[in-house]
Amino acid sequence: MKNVLCARCIRCGKTYEPTPGLTTCACGGILDIEYDYDFIKQSATKAFFASCQERTMWRYRAFLPIEPQTPLPPLRVGATPLYDVPRLAKAAGIARLWLKDDGLNPTASLKDRASALAVVKAREAGAHTVACSSTGNAASSLAGNAAAAGLPAVIFVPSRAPQGKVAQLLIFGATVISVEGSYEDTFRLSAQAIEEYGWYNRNAAVNPYLMEGKKTVAFEIAEALGWEMPDYVAVSVGDGCTIAGVYKGFYDLHAAGLIERIPRLLSVQAAGCWPIHRALRENAPLRPMEENTLADSIAVGVPRNPDKAMNAIRASHGVTVEVTDEEILAAMRLMGRTCGVFGEPAGVAGTAGVLKAAAQGLIESGASVVSIVTGNGLKDTANGIRAAGEPIRMPPDMRRLRQALQERGVAQ
Amino acid sequence: MKNVLCARCIRCGKTYEPTPGLTTCACGGILDIEYDYDFIKQSATKAFFASCQERTMWRYRAFLPIEPQTPLPPLRVGATPLYDVPRLAKAAGIARLWLKDDGLNPTASLKDRASALAVVKAREAGAHTVACSSTGNAASSLAGNAAAAGLPAVIFVPSRAPQGKVAQLLIFGATVISVEGSYEDTFRLSAQAIEEYGWYNRNAAVNPYLMEGKKTVAFEIAEALGWEMPDYVAVSVGDGCTIAGVYKGFYDLHAAGLIERIPRLLSVQAAGCWPIHRALRENAPLRPMEENTLADSIAVGVPRNPDKAMNAIRASHGVTVEVTDEEILAAMRLMGRTCGVFGEPAGVAGTAGVLKAAAQGLIESGASVVSIVTGNGLKDTANGIRAAGEPIRMPPDMRRLRQALQERGVAQ
Repeated sequence: MKNVLCARCIRCGKTYEPTPGLTTCACGGILDIEYDYDFIKQSATKAFFASCQERTMWRYRAFLPIEPQTPLPPLRVGATPLYDVPRLAKAAGIARLWLKDDGLNPTASLKDRASALAVVKAREAGAHTVACSSTGNAASSLAGNAAAAGLPAVIFVPSRAPQGKVAQLLIFGATVISVEGSYEDTFRLSAQAIEEYGWYNRNAAVNPYLMEGKKTVAFEIAEALGWEMPDYVAVSVGDGCTIAGVYKGFYDLHAAGLIERIPRLLSVQAAGCWPIHRALRENAPLRPMEENTLADSIAVGVPRNPDKAMNAIRASHGVTVEVTDEEILAAMRLMGRTCGVFGEPAGVAGTAGVLKAAAQGLIESGASVVSIVTGNGLKDTANGIRAAGEPIRMPPDMRRLRQALQERGVAQ
Repeated sequence: MKNVLCARCIRCGKTYEPTPGLTTCACGGILDIEYDYDFIKQSATKAFFASCQERTMWRYRAFLPIEPQTPLPPLRVGATPLYDVPRLAKAAGIARLWLKDDGLNPTASLKDRASALAVVKAREAGAHTVACSSTGNAASSLAGNAAAAGLPAVIFVPSRAPQGKVAQLLIFGATVISVEGSYEDTFRLSAQAIEEYGWYNRNAAVNPYLMEGKKTVAFEIAEALGWEMPDYVAVSVGDGCTIAGVYKGFYDLHAAGLIERIPRLLSVQAAGCWPIHRALRENAPLRPMEENTLADSIAVGVPRNPDKAMNAIRASHGVTVEVTDEEILAAMRLMGRTCGVFGEPAGVAGTAGVLKAAAQGLIESGASVVSIVTGNGLKDTANGIRAAGEPIRMPPDMRRLRQALQERGVAQ
């Protein structure tokens, strides 16, 4: 990898050779991949991107820590749409708003970007199997991307995991180990097995490469906007890996001279679970917090990647805001109604944060904002139903229909 | 529309001016849009497509019945991936197989192509509202595409419609009328209201333009294959509008000189509901049939577009095959496991048909086939769960894990 210099621990600064099987530093800190931007600049030019025919995240491989000869996995990850949404901008009271709909990835979440990179690195490591411990988007994206690449996947889930989520893993042919115990028991069994069998470890806060896949969402936003940066990029935050990846993407582009400034991050956590924001405000070490939110993908009381997330928010001069479950469901309805985009609760939380931050004056009314929709609403239809409201019930009677439509101001 | 000659009734041959509000012929027959291929040929060349930057279905507007100045709707419809799937081809026992994953459209089904066109024509017709009567993919795609375009939608559903499907419509802000009565009652009330209020009618078997949107899936397949046709294109069949649209797309390309032959259609119906295939085999008029299949999107006992579907199958020298629910669920698992693609039951029925047709020698082992995945599996998680199988349950015990993995031949 001529574009990569090293992996450096963000806690103690120790550096490592960027071997495919890297995990955490000996000190326990998370590693960060460092690049040779002078080398990258030679190929990653605006002219290159203007003529590049690759319509997936691999369009940005100049910035990715993969060997040139490694085969790319088959699913079409990335190249998700960026929608200019003037009616939603108006509702938010800001000048300009775009939605980046990452729910249109192959397994319907942004996590496909990390899992696709995991599959590439697993191949480079010569691994015969990839593994992780999760029931969420990380697991389903790993199962789908591994299946497409013909790589076996082993997924550990706690036995209380909802049947629907487990079904997606099984459809993708993963070996699913349902552990009769807590999440902690499940994680520990997976760690022991990964060690013993030499499986490739797909855990975003352990494996430093995964964040490098996630950063491609920032590249796509920048390129779609003609390399002109918005004032803010809003993203919902659980573990912290996604917002750290978004920052890294803009950092890379800035270092390579493709953009002139890094947008400010608007970090959005749930009002029922905001340990990263609390640590930032108190300027104190992170303490665990209860997980009181319906947005399961960001209900993370003990984030596994707080350091990188906090660095990203600070370095971008970011803004933090928390949203209630009601605000999340309201944003889900508003996005559906004004943009035709249906996101899962964590997927719309970023936009809920934009609405709240604008209403509270945390971001200015002249601001331009990109909000990232991290997952598809079809992943969580139960909360879709909670948000949806009720249809108009009536017998098949034209008179009753006329009356109902008139009352609601429809079809005047 | 300089590219359109007229609309012609496929039953009596009567022609009509292609006004935006066209429905059926006075005789009750369905209309078909006829094009001036000499005109189209001037712009729709291979060189044009090689340099065209539009990455949506509107890339093919030379072949679409829309005015040049009508604004295009916002959602990114089309440009779905075509996956080469050698392991699934091997499992099927054929030479080459591709999956066209139309479940990655914005509302997760191929129907987005028809609904996006409906939104364009509604605007041309000066309509203030679009309407249809359905609980399925037609309704959700109309609601989503209309919402994105800022066009109100009214959807009529029978009160027995599942809450999850109604939720998607409500999230997209459609006015949903839940009719206490049969589907027939619901349809009749909607027809009366559409007539009375002058709403734009989105019913694929009434409005001749919708099929023209669906045909863009054939254009994308042809272009992705470098205009070299596969031997067969497999598609599941309910109402008949989709297979008719697929045929029309290849017919257009052939007439415009972009492809040398039209692939044979592999028409797949459910073994519990196959009225179109029965009519073809008996060479007799279509008779209603019971709807005994879990694949709800093709459980259509009284298809509304059998004439165009049967014409398409005959004209392409097509092959017909029926698949059982068990074969549908098996295809769902096999596609997930070998390709990382999760389709809804009707979405995988085409592939189930490929597997069955190959096993029965209806298609030859040297055949190349494209199978269209018409809808995303996340739309019907209940059947995903039925197909999925069971995880491996155990306490958090490494010894038990070793034993379970060894029994299953995992991680050797």
